[in-house]
Amino acid sequence: MVKTEQVKIKTEGNCDVVNITEFVQNFINRAGIKEGTITIFNVGSTAAITTTEYEPGLVNHDLKAAFEKIAPQNANYEHEKTWNDDNGHSHVSASLLGPSLSVPVLDGRLTLGTWQQIVLIDFDTSPRTRTLVCQFIGD
Amino acid sequence: MVKTEQVKIKTEGNCDVVNITEFVQNFINRAGIKEGTITIFNVGSTAAITTTEYEPGLVNHDLKAAFEKIAPQNANYEHEKTWNDDNGHSHVSASLLGPSLSVPVLDGRLTLGTWQQIVLIDFDTSPRTRTLVCQFIGD
Amino acid sequence: MVKTEQVKIKTEGNCDVVNITEFVQNFINRAGIKEGTITIFNVGSTAAITTTEYEPGLVNHDLKAAFEKIAPQNANYEHEKTWNDDNGHSHVSASLLGPSLSVPVLDGRLTLGTWQQIVLIDFDTSPRTRTLVCQFIGD
Repeated sequence: MVKTEQVKIKTEGNCDVVNITEFVQNFINRAGIKEGTITIFNVGSTAAITTTEYEPGLVNHDLKAAFEKIAPQNANYEHEKTWNDDNGHSHVSASLLGPSLSVPVLDGRLTLGTWQQIVLIDFDTSPRTRTLVCQFIGD
Repeated sequence: MVKTEQVKIKTEGNCDVVNITEFVQNFINRAGIKEGTITIFNVGSTAAITTTEYEPGLVNHDLKAAFEKIAPQNANYEHEKTWNDDNGHSHVSASLLGPSLSVPVLDGRLTLGTWQQIVLIDFDTSPRTRTLVCQFIGD
Repeated sequence: MVKTEQVKIKTEGNCDVVNITEFVQNFINRAGIKEGTITIFNVGSTAAITTTEYEPGLVNHDLKAAFEKIAPQNANYEHEKTWNDDNGHSHVSASLLGPSLSVPVLDGRLTLGTWQQIVLIDFDTSPRTRTLVCQFIGD
């Protein structure tokens, strides 16, 4: 079977790391899903999905510092000249991290580790409401 | 149902960013696909798949600059000593970005944003013809 | 059909790059899988999955050097203050690379290139036994 759901997630932007694990598990519970693969996809090109241990050190400091190093906010971006905006670094970080994540489900549960949460990272430069597509394939 | 197609894509190499969205959507149209997940996989270890806003600033400048920073072309790579070649940086960038992307399909359409395209990035050092495997699972 | 298997993989940590291609192909052979998508998922937030050419130069040197540049082992991490541990860089690298990889299977074979192997990279700071979930959806 295929089950698809679109949801809206509010973010603060500027590398805001949002824990979306509970939403994904709730979708699994509602849909009566037992075994199969869930894909979580961010619609748009300035946010991305991965997993991390959701604790304040990583979420509020270390991940931000790493992306600031890879794609510094104040570097020169041709993208910003094209559109006269300020989010060149947001695009670069989001493309590098990637918009989708696939996670196996077994016995109705995400197969995450205890200290592993699914996160949406919004790299854009102001608060946004993001659309995520959550799609399950399996039994 | 499962639908699989292999396609050849010509690239210029050297961080050439190729928009493959239309190919993927055409595959969906031909196959009569309605709802499910598409996985696009690059065969080979010096190119990768992600999404970005396909506009000249990001595509011709900013993404190249970011990967040049992460894996500079002129740094020393042990890989190049092994094979006496010049593409150590290509391997590192491709492994970091990853060879596959999964995108949900709903009502026969990719669930991309308006300014979000699926791209193949070829990090190798000369023009290549790439093989992509495009595989759909769903209804 | 859905087939799911959990396996244990021993690693040395410290950016140990482990070739898991044969395990995944063996799973395909045992399960009698013909066509569909395999997702390999690392349980935990300090290791990740990608593909690379599995040769000593990349595996023992170049990939390590790239991740050391992105997330240096000796930098300051707030995560380490939270838990009084030493693996802040491990978390950052693992989140950036991502915990899962999806690969199409066709005619009972992974659609990898000749010089492209599936690898688990363990970024943690000591030897570990990792749990991977290998899940197939298809025919």
